[in-house]
Amino acid sequence: MKHTTLLTKQVTFAASHRYWNPNWTEEKNRRVFGKCTSPYGHGHNYVLEVTLQGEPHPDTGMIMNLYDLKPILMDVLADFDHKYLNEDNPRFKHTIPTTENIAKALWELIEVRIIENADCALYKVRLYETPELYVEYWRES
Amino acid sequence: MKHTTLLTKQVTFAASHRYWNPNWTEEKNRRVFGKCTSPYGHGHNYVLEVTLQGEPHPDTGMIMNLYDLKPILMDVLADFDHKYLNEDNPRFKHTIPTTENIAKALWELIEVRIIENADCALYKVRLYETPELYVEYWRES
Amino acid sequence: MKHTTLLTKQVTFAASHRYWNPNWTEEKNRRVFGKCTSPYGHGHNYVLEVTLQGEPHPDTGMIMNLYDLKPILMDVLADFDHKYLNEDNPRFKHTIPTTENIAKALWELIEVRIIENADCALYKVRLYETPELYVEYWRES
Amino acid sequence: MKHTTLLTKQVTFAASHRYWNPNWTEEKNRRVFGKCTSPYGHGHNYVLEVTLQGEPHPDTGMIMNLYDLKPILMDVLADFDHKYLNEDNPRFKHTIPTTENIAKALWELIEVRIIENADCALYKVRLYETPELYVEYWRES
Amino acid sequence: MKHTTLLTKQVTFAASHRYWNPNWTEEKNRRVFGKCTSPYGHGHNYVLEVTLQGEPHPDTGMIMNLYDLKPILMDVLADFDHKYLNEDNPRFKHTIPTTENIAKALWELIEVRIIENADCALYKVRLYETPELYVEYWRES
Amino acid sequence: MKHTTLLTKQVTFAASHRYWNPNWTEEKNRRVFGKCTSPYGHGHNYVLEVTLQGEPHPDTGMIMNLYDLKPILMDVLADFDHKYLNEDNPRFKHTIPTTENIAKALWELIEVRIIENADCALYKVRLYETPELYVEYWRES
Repeated sequence: MKHTTLLTKQVTFAASHRYWNPNWTEEKNRRVFGKCTSPYGHGHNYVLEVTLQGEPHPDTGMIMNLYDLKPILMDVLADFDHKYLNEDNPRFKHTIPTTENIAKALWELIEVRIIENADCALYKVRLYETPELYVEYWRES
Repeated sequence: MKHTTLLTKQVTFAASHRYWNPNWTEEKNRRVFGKCTSPYGHGHNYVLEVTLQGEPHPDTGMIMNLYDLKPILMDVLADFDHKYLNEDNPRFKHTIPTTENIAKALWELIEVRIIENADCALYKVRLYETPELYVEYWRES
Repeated sequence: MKHTTLLTKQVTFAASHRYWNPNWTEEKNRRVFGKCTSPYGHGHNYVLEVTLQGEPHPDTGMIMNLYDLKPILMDVLADFDHKYLNEDNPRFKHTIPTTENIAKALWELIEVRIIENADCALYKVRLYETPELYVEYWRES
Repeated sequence: MKHTTLLTKQVTFAASHRYWNPNWTEEKNRRVFGKCTSPYGHGHNYVLEVTLQGEPHPDTGMIMNLYDLKPILMDVLADFDHKYLNEDNPRFKHTIPTTENIAKALWELIEVRIIENADCALYKVRLYETPELYVEYWRES
Repeated sequence: MKHTTLLTKQVTFAASHRYWNPNWTEEKNRRVFGKCTSPYGHGHNYVLEVTLQGEPHPDTGMIMNLYDLKPILMDVLADFDHKYLNEDNPRFKHTIPTTENIAKALWELIEVRIIENADCALYKVRLYETPELYVEYWRES
Repeated sequence: MKHTTLLTKQVTFAASHRYWNPNWTEEKNRRVFGKCTSPYGHGHNYVLEVTLQGEPHPDTGMIMNLYDLKPILMDVLADFDHKYLNEDNPRFKHTIPTTENIAKALWELIEVRIIENADCALYKVRLYETPELYVEYWRES
């Protein structure tokens, strides 16, 4: 009989963004994206939950030591925290920084680092844009 | 390699309800349901989380636009918000409005509307009766 | 140099209520109170914060022992928790159970019990109807 | 014996801002404001609590009807919500949009509207930049 | 077409713990566990979410009555609440009381009691050490 | 017309404590303090809110820069975070570490540091032992 153990760490960052599709007229952008087209952007306190799957190590009782996980997350978030994503983060030059797309970007950046540095696997990311709106992203097994 | 993307939107409503099984004696109702049998009902600030599964559309970066989702949820909740569920909502004439049964009712009402109006699928509903008690309901794949 | 020490204990209860002024027409009630006139009422998870002022006792380091405070609060809330306030609580036969009026009623009921049972004073009550709406009530010094 | 009754309504808005003093060198701005000098700004989910003082009206049991208060707050927040405060809001052309200064601006804008429209008084505004940082602003009596 | 219904109840307890591997030097314990090696321990307000899977009973509309579930949880938590886990709970004499290991212990203790007392199944436990860190544990099907 | 501006910063720490009056019998300690007498202590995630009063500086728009405030708070909390207060913190050798007494200790330690380092004044500390229990402490003017 096998059990699953997941560890989730929550971190926050503050960023701003704008929803704008350059292939559309301004009128269509306004109709679809509403207030989110505001030209200089607007912002959020994003909350990121990173979930790891693995076996607790017999020596430490931990899937992954937070002293090892936190620097990875801080490193990845350096291009997101206190940034205007559309201008400051090259991933969003041609991709609208919706919660869906930011979650996907964070999954990709974090997964590489977990593979390189840890014995556990990235299981899921959850990204809250506000306390009432969040996206989850994971790889299907 | 395929990934899953989920979008969750949280909305709230205030309703009241009473737990009462008409096939039981008053004494048995009191023993099983305790304070929840109080004859005129009592109430809660319900918190509903609606989770959609789909692919972010390349034009918008969104699984479903909140400007499209919110009117559906407001419409469905019109029979729940500021209502005494046992009297005001026909679904609970013969069904006790427990959190389990309210969650199931909301799934059925929302699923129809998502199928009619969106390219994504309803994945799960989660209904909080209080911050310490919630029910989740979804279709097994 | 004198300092103030306050102790606040939070408790919750679930109740339902209806806003209705019997001196008004139904039309005026609807215009003023909107969805809150729904005839069978609707409900909330109320959160009550009770704040006491006093000097921590040198033997216990406490303004008031929670083992003494909690039974008082449970006792006072027996007429509010899992009740339809308009029908079940005599204080709201002729008084609309708004958050303002419920907070005042709770102040009066709790203050008597603190005066009888404790060396500290009731300083304030705060009553949340929802996490986004609350009333505070206290006696001006 | 007189009592004080306060009513507090919480609303949220999403905005972005940048900390920058044009009289300082870039180096000094960076030293004082750190990541908050990021040139295109960054953002937050601001939470505003507006507190009113008054007597509950005998006809309604309310200090102020939320149906009257909410349009005022939505109207005032139209220049803040989904805006880059430094560019989009004329109040912050020459004033750094710190939480302290935004709270003061909101007090002034809301107070005028309460005086014009209500029988109660604005008692306090509290503005959360994040759940861990907030400013309160009121007039000394 | 089959659906899944889950019921989750949240309870809290306060405990303290220390991270220490007796097979390691003090220096290695400090390097790996940092502040968590503090010799007399430190503590948390743990939040436990217990999730049950089952069919709502037609008579009650409930997967399991909270009046039946709560005594089981209180009973299980008697060895955890207001305890120093390393000294007071025999399970952690030779096992480091990390969130991973506490979650596993709670799963095992609660599962036995659910099997004995209820028609539903334990589906998952989630244990928050802080609001920013939690572990989930369940049996793979 | 003068206004008051307050800035509040929230920080957290994890500690454990025991309630025990050495002048009392074990039986009396148990009767008064209940589970809090557990001999090896138990713990909490404490949340500390530090409120400063002052005028926003015209150059920065801030009462106090968080880059200056945070190191002071981290420094003060070094003797509280991840500690067993009764043994690790000399202030609680002869004083029971109730929330009331911890709040007073934190006020005294922080006030000295604010007086030495800032142009604003410490206005209040609020200490949450749990989300449902907190103490406030300030100097009467």
